[in-house]
Amino acid sequence: MTRVGILGGGQLGLMLAEALLPLDAEVAVYDPDPAAPAGRRLPDVTARPWTDDAALRAFAARCDVVTYEFENIPAAAAEVCAATTTLWPAPHVLQTTQDRAREKEFLARAGLPHVPFRTGCTPADLEGAARDIGFPCVLKTARGGYDGKGQVLLRSAADLQRHAARLPGTAADAPGWVLEAFVALEAELSCIVARTAAGTMIVFPVFENTHREHVLDVTCVPANLPAEVCAAARAVAARAAAALDVVGLLTVEFFLGRPTGGPGAAAEPALFVNEFAPRPHNSGHVTRSACTFSQFDALARVLLGLALPEPLLLGPYAFCMGNLLGDIWLAQGRTELSLDAWRAHPAVIDVYLYGKHDPRPRRKMGHCIAIGPDTAAARRAVDAFRRDLARPPGAPRG
Amino acid sequence: MTRVGILGGGQLGLMLAEALLPLDAEVAVYDPDPAAPAGRRLPDVTARPWTDDAALRAFAARCDVVTYEFENIPAAAAEVCAATTTLWPAPHVLQTTQDRAREKEFLARAGLPHVPFRTGCTPADLEGAARDIGFPCVLKTARGGYDGKGQVLLRSAADLQRHAARLPGTAADAPGWVLEAFVALEAELSCIVARTAAGTMIVFPVFENTHREHVLDVTCVPANLPAEVCAAARAVAARAAAALDVVGLLTVEFFLGRPTGGPGAAAEPALFVNEFAPRPHNSGHVTRSACTFSQFDALARVLLGLALPEPLLLGPYAFCMGNLLGDIWLAQGRTELSLDAWRAHPAVIDVYLYGKHDPRPRRKMGHCIAIGPDTAAARRAVDAFRRDLARPPGAPRG
Repeated sequence: MTRVGILGGGQLGLMLAEALLPLDAEVAVYDPDPAAPAGRRLPDVTARPWTDDAALRAFAARCDVVTYEFENIPAAAAEVCAATTTLWPAPHVLQTTQDRAREKEFLARAGLPHVPFRTGCTPADLEGAARDIGFPCVLKTARGGYDGKGQVLLRSAADLQRHAARLPGTAADAPGWVLEAFVALEAELSCIVARTAAGTMIVFPVFENTHREHVLDVTCVPANLPAEVCAAARAVAARAAAALDVVGLLTVEFFLGRPTGGPGAAAEPALFVNEFAPRPHNSGHVTRSACTFSQFDALARVLLGLALPEPLLLGPYAFCMGNLLGDIWLAQGRTELSLDAWRAHPAVIDVYLYGKHDPRPRRKMGHCIAIGPDTAAARRAVDAFRRDLARPPGAPRG
Repeated sequence: MTRVGILGGGQLGLMLAEALLPLDAEVAVYDPDPAAPAGRRLPDVTARPWTDDAALRAFAARCDVVTYEFENIPAAAAEVCAATTTLWPAPHVLQTTQDRAREKEFLARAGLPHVPFRTGCTPADLEGAARDIGFPCVLKTARGGYDGKGQVLLRSAADLQRHAARLPGTAADAPGWVLEAFVALEAELSCIVARTAAGTMIVFPVFENTHREHVLDVTCVPANLPAEVCAAARAVAARAAAALDVVGLLTVEFFLGRPTGGPGAAAEPALFVNEFAPRPHNSGHVTRSACTFSQFDALARVLLGLALPEPLLLGPYAFCMGNLLGDIWLAQGRTELSLDAWRAHPAVIDVYLYGKHDPRPRRKMGHCIAIGPDTAAARRAVDAFRRDLARPPGAPRG
C-alpha cells in the first residue's frame, strides 16, 4: 500500500487525505499544531516542529511520497523530506513559489504574462525601481506574505519613503522585495493544473474569484468572461506548470486588468499571472461540487500514479463557493456554528466546516457551495446564506 | 458538538462518517470486526461483540444519536441503544424490515404495491400457501437473508417438498418464511427517501439496477424507463417512508414486471415493492457523483437536524455505478488492487475502494462511477473498465 505524507494539516491537507483514502492509500500528516483540522479527523498525525529534522526524517522515511498543503513550509523541512523520499512538487518549485522576486523572474524568463516589476534587496534600490514602474505601484516583501499580508499600495514618493524606512536596511538581513505596477482590476481568475510525473497535464475550468480585504471571498464557475480569456488563462496555466516542472497541482492566479501608472500603463485590459500556489487552492474547493472530480482527487491520482482524465464542468449549472470566515462565528457569538439558517437556502448544496473552534476575524473556518442556473444566481445564494448565518441566534431575518 | 454513533463499520458506515465529519459532527463506530473498513480509517471505533450489552450501552451513552448501516444488527443491540439514546430509524422500523414476513404484511396493510404472497411459520403451512400463490414461486426465509441468500425458486410441488424438508420443523425454532409469486422482471429499480424527525421528506431520482447472481452489479441513473413509472416509484417510496415513520433513509427496492403463475398471473408489467432497507444503500453510491449531494449527505443532515434541500440530478449526463467485487482481485491474483487499467477509461470519474484486503468471490470491495451522454454509454464504460481491471497484470487487453 502506498503511504502519502502531507506536510501541513490544515483544511487543504484534510481534504487531500479524504481523496487519498478511498484510493487505498495510507495517509500520514505532519503539522506542528495538534489542533489542526487533520489532527482532529485523521488517525496518523505527527505533531512536531518544522525544525525537528529527526522527526521529519522519520516521517518521510515512512512515506512513499510526500507533498505539502501550503507553500510556506520552511525550505529546510522540504529539503529533509526530499533527501529521504520523493517530494512532489519538487523543492525547486517551492524555491520559486516561496519567493515573490524569484517567481516574477521566473515569469519573465518563461515568457509568461506578468505586470511590470522590479526586484531588489535593500531600501536603497527602491527609488530607482519606482522611477521605472511609476505610481501607483505595489510594494511586496519577497517572502512570507499571504492573504494580503506583506504588501502595500504606494501612491506617491512620500508613501515610498515611509515604507522604505520600514524595510530591513542591509543586504544581510534583507528578505528582498518586489515593486510592481498597480493593476486596475476587471476580474481575478484562477486556474488549476494537475501534472503527472510523466508530464501529462489536465486543466480545470477557469474560476472567477472575488477577494475582500485581500482574503478570498467567493469563487464562481463558469467564469463570467469571454471564452477567449478563459482559453488564454488555461493555456498560460499549462505552460507555467510545464515550465516549472510541477508534479502535482499548480494553481495560477491571474489579474485581468490594466496597469494604470508609469511606462507600463495600458488602455486595454490584459491577463497577467499574479502568483502561483503549487498545491490545492482555496478557489479549487468549488471543484468538489462543480466538476466530475475535484482538485483533491486530481492531486491524489498524481501522487499515486493513477489515471488522470480531463475533469468536466457539470453544466448547464453554475456554482459558487463562498468562504465561511471566523467573523460569522463571532457574529453568532459562539464557537460552534449553528447551521439553522441553512433551511432557508436550498441552493446551498454543500457546507464544509474545518473543525476549527477558535474563530478569529478573517480566519477561514469552512466554506459553502451553491448551485444556480447562472453564476450570478449561485453567488446571490451564497451571499444570502452567509448573511443569514451571521445573524446572532434569535435575531430576525432581514 | 453532536456525536453520531454508527452501528456497523462497513463501507456504508465509513461513507456516512465521511459525510458527517465536515458538518462538524463527531463520529463513533461500533463493529465487532476491528478490520472493518471504518476501523481502518476512523479514529473512534469500538470493536466489541453485538452481545456485549455493557459496551453497547457505554457506546450509546457517548452519542447524541445512533444509527445503523445495515439492518441485520441484532434487535437486542438496537434495543439497548434505543433505551440509552436516540436511535434513528427507530426500533420499530428494524422490526419490520428485518423480517420479510412482517415487511410483506406491512406492505399489504399500508396499501403499497406488492406481489401476491403468503407467510407462515412451519413447513406444514407451505403446501396451502403454494396452492394460493401457484408455481413458479419464491420461498424466502423471513430473517437473515441478503444478496440472494435465504431464498430459492420453486418450480413445482417436488421443489416445494424438497425445500420444505430443510426448514426448521417446529414453531418454536421457526424463523418463518414468505412464499411469493415469481415475477418475470422487466427492470429492477430503487428509490431512496430521506425523512427528517419533523416528517419532511426528499426523494432521490429513481435508479435502475442490474443484479448478477443476486448481487448488485450496476446502478444507472437516469433510469431508462417511462417518466410515469419513475414518478410512481418515487411516490410509493415517499408513502412507504411516511407509513413506516422512518427518520433517516429508506431505500425502497422495486420490481417492474409481471407475476407469471397462479391466480396473480398478469399480462402487463407493474411496479411492486420488493424490499426495504432503512439505511444507505449500495445503489445509492451513484448519488456521490450524479446528484448535488449524496445519500450519505442526506442521512448526515437528518441525523444532525440540518436543512435537507431537494437533491438535483446533474443533467444532461447519465451516470453508472458498478460494484468492484472480490473476483476482480482474485483475477489479478493480488490482495492489493492495481488500478493501472484506469488510464484507458477516462469516462470513469471515481473509484472508491473500501480498504478490504481479503478478497472473496462476490465480496463487495469497492465501486466505480462512470459518466456518459446516456445511460447505455455510462454502463458500457463501467463494464469495459471492470473487464480491463480483471485481467492479470501483464495480460494483453482484448
